[in-house]
Amino acid sequence: MKVILHQTHITVCDLEQTEQYLRNLLEEGMTIGEPELHIFPELFLCGYPLQDLVLQKSFYEKYHQMLERLNEISLATKGNDKKSLLLGGLKYHFDEEGVPKNIFNGVYSLHPGGALQWLTAKQLLPNYDIFDERKYYTSGQETRIWQWQGLNIGILVCEDMWPSSFYKRNPVDDLAKSKDKLHLVVNLSASPFHLGKTSKRFNRAKQISSLLSCPYIYVNKVGGEDEILFDGESFINEGDRLLAMAKSFESDILEFDLSIPFDEQKSKKPSSDNISGSAWEELFRPNLNGQVPLRLNQLSGNDFEKIIQALGFGLQEYATKNGFNHFTVALSGGLDSALVLTLIHLNLKKGQTLEAIYMPGQFSAGLSHDLSLELCQNLGIRLKVLPIKFLHSTTKNAFLKDLGEPLIAVADENVQSRLRGLLIYGRSNQKGGMVVNTSNKSEIAVGYSTQYGDSVGAISMLGDLYKSEVFQLANYINATKNNLIPQGIIDRPPSAELRPDQKDTDSLPPYEELDTILEGILSYRYTKEDLILAGLSKENVNKTFDLYRKSEFKRFQFCPIIKLRSKSFGFGYRNPLSKRTEFYF
Amino acid sequence: MKVILHQTHITVCDLEQTEQYLRNLLEEGMTIGEPELHIFPELFLCGYPLQDLVLQKSFYEKYHQMLERLNEISLATKGNDKKSLLLGGLKYHFDEEGVPKNIFNGVYSLHPGGALQWLTAKQLLPNYDIFDERKYYTSGQETRIWQWQGLNIGILVCEDMWPSSFYKRNPVDDLAKSKDKLHLVVNLSASPFHLGKTSKRFNRAKQISSLLSCPYIYVNKVGGEDEILFDGESFINEGDRLLAMAKSFESDILEFDLSIPFDEQKSKKPSSDNISGSAWEELFRPNLNGQVPLRLNQLSGNDFEKIIQALGFGLQEYATKNGFNHFTVALSGGLDSALVLTLIHLNLKKGQTLEAIYMPGQFSAGLSHDLSLELCQNLGIRLKVLPIKFLHSTTKNAFLKDLGEPLIAVADENVQSRLRGLLIYGRSNQKGGMVVNTSNKSEIAVGYSTQYGDSVGAISMLGDLYKSEVFQLANYINATKNNLIPQGIIDRPPSAELRPDQKDTDSLPPYEELDTILEGILSYRYTKEDLILAGLSKENVNKTFDLYRKSEFKRFQFCPIIKLRSKSFGFGYRNPLSKRTEFYF
Repeated sequence: MKVILHQTHITVCDLEQTEQYLRNLLEEGMTIGEPELHIFPELFLCGYPLQDLVLQKSFYEKYHQMLERLNEISLATKGNDKKSLLLGGLKYHFDEEGVPKNIFNGVYSLHPGGALQWLTAKQLLPNYDIFDERKYYTSGQETRIWQWQGLNIGILVCEDMWPSSFYKRNPVDDLAKSKDKLHLVVNLSASPFHLGKTSKRFNRAKQISSLLSCPYIYVNKVGGEDEILFDGESFINEGDRLLAMAKSFESDILEFDLSIPFDEQKSKKPSSDNISGSAWEELFRPNLNGQVPLRLNQLSGNDFEKIIQALGFGLQEYATKNGFNHFTVALSGGLDSALVLTLIHLNLKKGQTLEAIYMPGQFSAGLSHDLSLELCQNLGIRLKVLPIKFLHSTTKNAFLKDLGEPLIAVADENVQSRLRGLLIYGRSNQKGGMVVNTSNKSEIAVGYSTQYGDSVGAISMLGDLYKSEVFQLANYINATKNNLIPQGIIDRPPSAELRPDQKDTDSLPPYEELDTILEGILSYRYTKEDLILAGLSKENVNKTFDLYRKSEFKRFQFCPIIKLRSKSFGFGYRNPLSKRTEFYF
Repeated sequence: MKVILHQTHITVCDLEQTEQYLRNLLEEGMTIGEPELHIFPELFLCGYPLQDLVLQKSFYEKYHQMLERLNEISLATKGNDKKSLLLGGLKYHFDEEGVPKNIFNGVYSLHPGGALQWLTAKQLLPNYDIFDERKYYTSGQETRIWQWQGLNIGILVCEDMWPSSFYKRNPVDDLAKSKDKLHLVVNLSASPFHLGKTSKRFNRAKQISSLLSCPYIYVNKVGGEDEILFDGESFINEGDRLLAMAKSFESDILEFDLSIPFDEQKSKKPSSDNISGSAWEELFRPNLNGQVPLRLNQLSGNDFEKIIQALGFGLQEYATKNGFNHFTVALSGGLDSALVLTLIHLNLKKGQTLEAIYMPGQFSAGLSHDLSLELCQNLGIRLKVLPIKFLHSTTKNAFLKDLGEPLIAVADENVQSRLRGLLIYGRSNQKGGMVVNTSNKSEIAVGYSTQYGDSVGAISMLGDLYKSEVFQLANYINATKNNLIPQGIIDRPPSAELRPDQKDTDSLPPYEELDTILEGILSYRYTKEDLILAGLSKENVNKTFDLYRKSEFKRFQFCPIIKLRSKSFGFGYRNPLSKRTEFYF
């Protein structure tokens, strides 16, 4: 038999394109030959994540009309039940007044000449971190083994492959009970990308395939949905052997001739320890076994390649889906903005334009201009200069003259940053473009930025990378891509240039230490005591907790951040602004 | 017996104050007299909503230390099991590595001389709209009837009183099965305020009390948690009779002598139809039975009083908990900012200051200044004037001179608005105050505002009121509070004053119609066709859907909005920015 993995890339809610895709498939080339199983991602029929759209009548009316048309299209084609489609989609149950009562996220089958058949519903509904599936969906109560062409095919939907103590049901155990008759397991997924996810998924698939002694097919979608990226990388494996894998961050159709049955691993049964994954718990597990002194995990060359690819993809997805083909970046002469400009440049598509604006103020070093210019020359971009000096002094005069009070200290620093925010947005409006944010994760975590100033933007590219990783990524790009970023930008001490001789280290611990503490707080949920025990300085630990605690309001109004890690700021990060945590945080 | 309802008002995570409160109670005046049952709100011991703090080791370590100290305090006091406390709190189950495995939201009992006893866990965990309790908590599997002083007391936690088809369990039905032996039902709640919630809760309590033929005690917390307000209004009822009710938006201790048993209503059993509430479904139920042409529900005088109280409380909670005692408002001469200034003025506390800044531009009418001045005189506030004219022309010059392109049209309009955003924040930084946002729900819904411009602020007071309700509220305030707002502000046509002779109606449908369409989309999830059938103009319906669909990115970065309605923007509103809905939305 042939299996065809449809790693699709269709915008959320684009029912027209979805219908056209299936129409083409049903009407062309499905009439002859051997059995073919076409497998699609989770919620292929509507897109994912839909969030509240799933409850909007405008949506579900059109969705059901599309399902009707699909049935008509299929029924009008020549019957052939050797060619079947497994499609992720929603199933609504309505009450007597026509209002949704229960909604299931699950799988339909379809073959040319037939109508859509509901097969099964997703059982494990993730509701941690960025997931809120229990808000919308009702859990399935059965692990379906589907009979098709004489084969018994176990069907899982995404999280169903990750049973844990957090869930009552265990679809993998259910399949194991029918192990002897099982020929194949398929998983329809919409699985968000983060660094390390590829091997995490594959390791799990190996376990399941070995346990069940049958091939495992994993189909993932492709798409950038604001903060969340879906990277594809659909695959087929038999036990430890990877048989085929689709592309990363690109739509792909993976065809494979699968010989069934597969029994090479029949004797191999991992313990239930190995097969029990974890979801919620793992995310929040304080890892107290770190080295002393604790250090941030180092990223590899492979990680950096993935990061470059993911950030480019995420940016392009946002731009394309929201109708932008011009990007505007505020260059400061520092590393964050230089890296953002370089990353956009590396990912620019035909017909798109990129503009860099340098906005020097009273405290900007001449070197900042020279380095910005050098960078733009390296990238072949003309640097535009729009000084804030005169606007800044005009603003200061206005405060003094009209309100009788001089603008000083932090108020004066913020005004400079906000003037830049205003100008970069003015320029972007002028060109109909989008402003790309340049904040990094360290800054966001400690609030080392000005609200409505340097923190503005439509989307953040570096918001899930600590500053020390920003340095590493810049070095990696220079080493592999012709030294695009002037070394002077990487080497100079970071500064906001909002007062004379300002350095980031005046206000913050050294980035290497700061980032380690932040990762301890954010990903591992360490206490102050844990971090001090792990060899970090008490003074810096206290300072970091303090800055982190006080800057929640800035994060609340921050733009979407392209997610690269398992724990990031954004939708999956939820903390009250108003609280009393200063005596233990 | 005496029941004492502790309607507490303690900041989320303020474990010190929580401990002190209980220490005082245990150590004073609990040694003599008749049986006393002290009932506290849901999650009293830690605060609610904690969001991700519940998973932070820094939090749960300190929380468990506090529970230990409470035990010590109690064990050190003279034993008296006639005086019992029912305390809402968290119960953690840890795995072998000391990491939380399951967390329950439930009820402890405590009496002087004893230790904390876990009684039961909340069964119905709301996970719709603003609620994400299934992210953190595990559902209880038992409806507890607690034996105390010869009485059988049914214990519910908040949502447990609202079984619906969305939940598998039904705690009210469980209690009904033990109806004959039941003496009392208590509900420990943390129930968010919205207009109409008082009667909704009470109607439900009447049903339950009648069904179970016993008194019903409902204890709610008080607090403003960013967007969400908890209004207290704890009460006791027997069937249809309200026996006592605590204050709104204020901590209160309600003591009541309860005679048990109560059997007046023994014969009255409502049908199961009446007793089955709904949660998720009700929120999203398209109400197609509206009048034609459809109109927004009218608010009553009582609603306006509640709104004034709620907005004042919400603002003060944010200010107090985040350390502000100075408020800054940008006055435009229009109604929104005038109303915000008036509302703050009406709710100002001793020691707090309020400042109004008027920032005229090239297109500001002289009348805008005069009306702003008149308002400030009415309120006894000195008006500060900080013109943007010169800064605006300087900015225009900079764009022309430095970038070679004139700043025109929307780019020029936005710059004016952003200059005001910059100046009001500069002023606020100068005074160490907080900027109060002045956007209304209509503007937010259609994106009729400038990002980082007039949409700035720490918290939004009017963001859950449509513009037509803003007019009504202003008229109500004038009628009941000495015509504080100059009639000229209410009567003039709304304008952003960003180009010559600009009127809101140039870009938007008349507010009355716009607001009806918006409420149809947001609360009732009507389709375009539904709205047109309900008598609204096709042109305005299409225009409104279009504006709403395109402005998601502005709402993403908006500040917290004080929630007044069952469906609001903010945490409970979740929609993707990147999507393809234009062909049906």
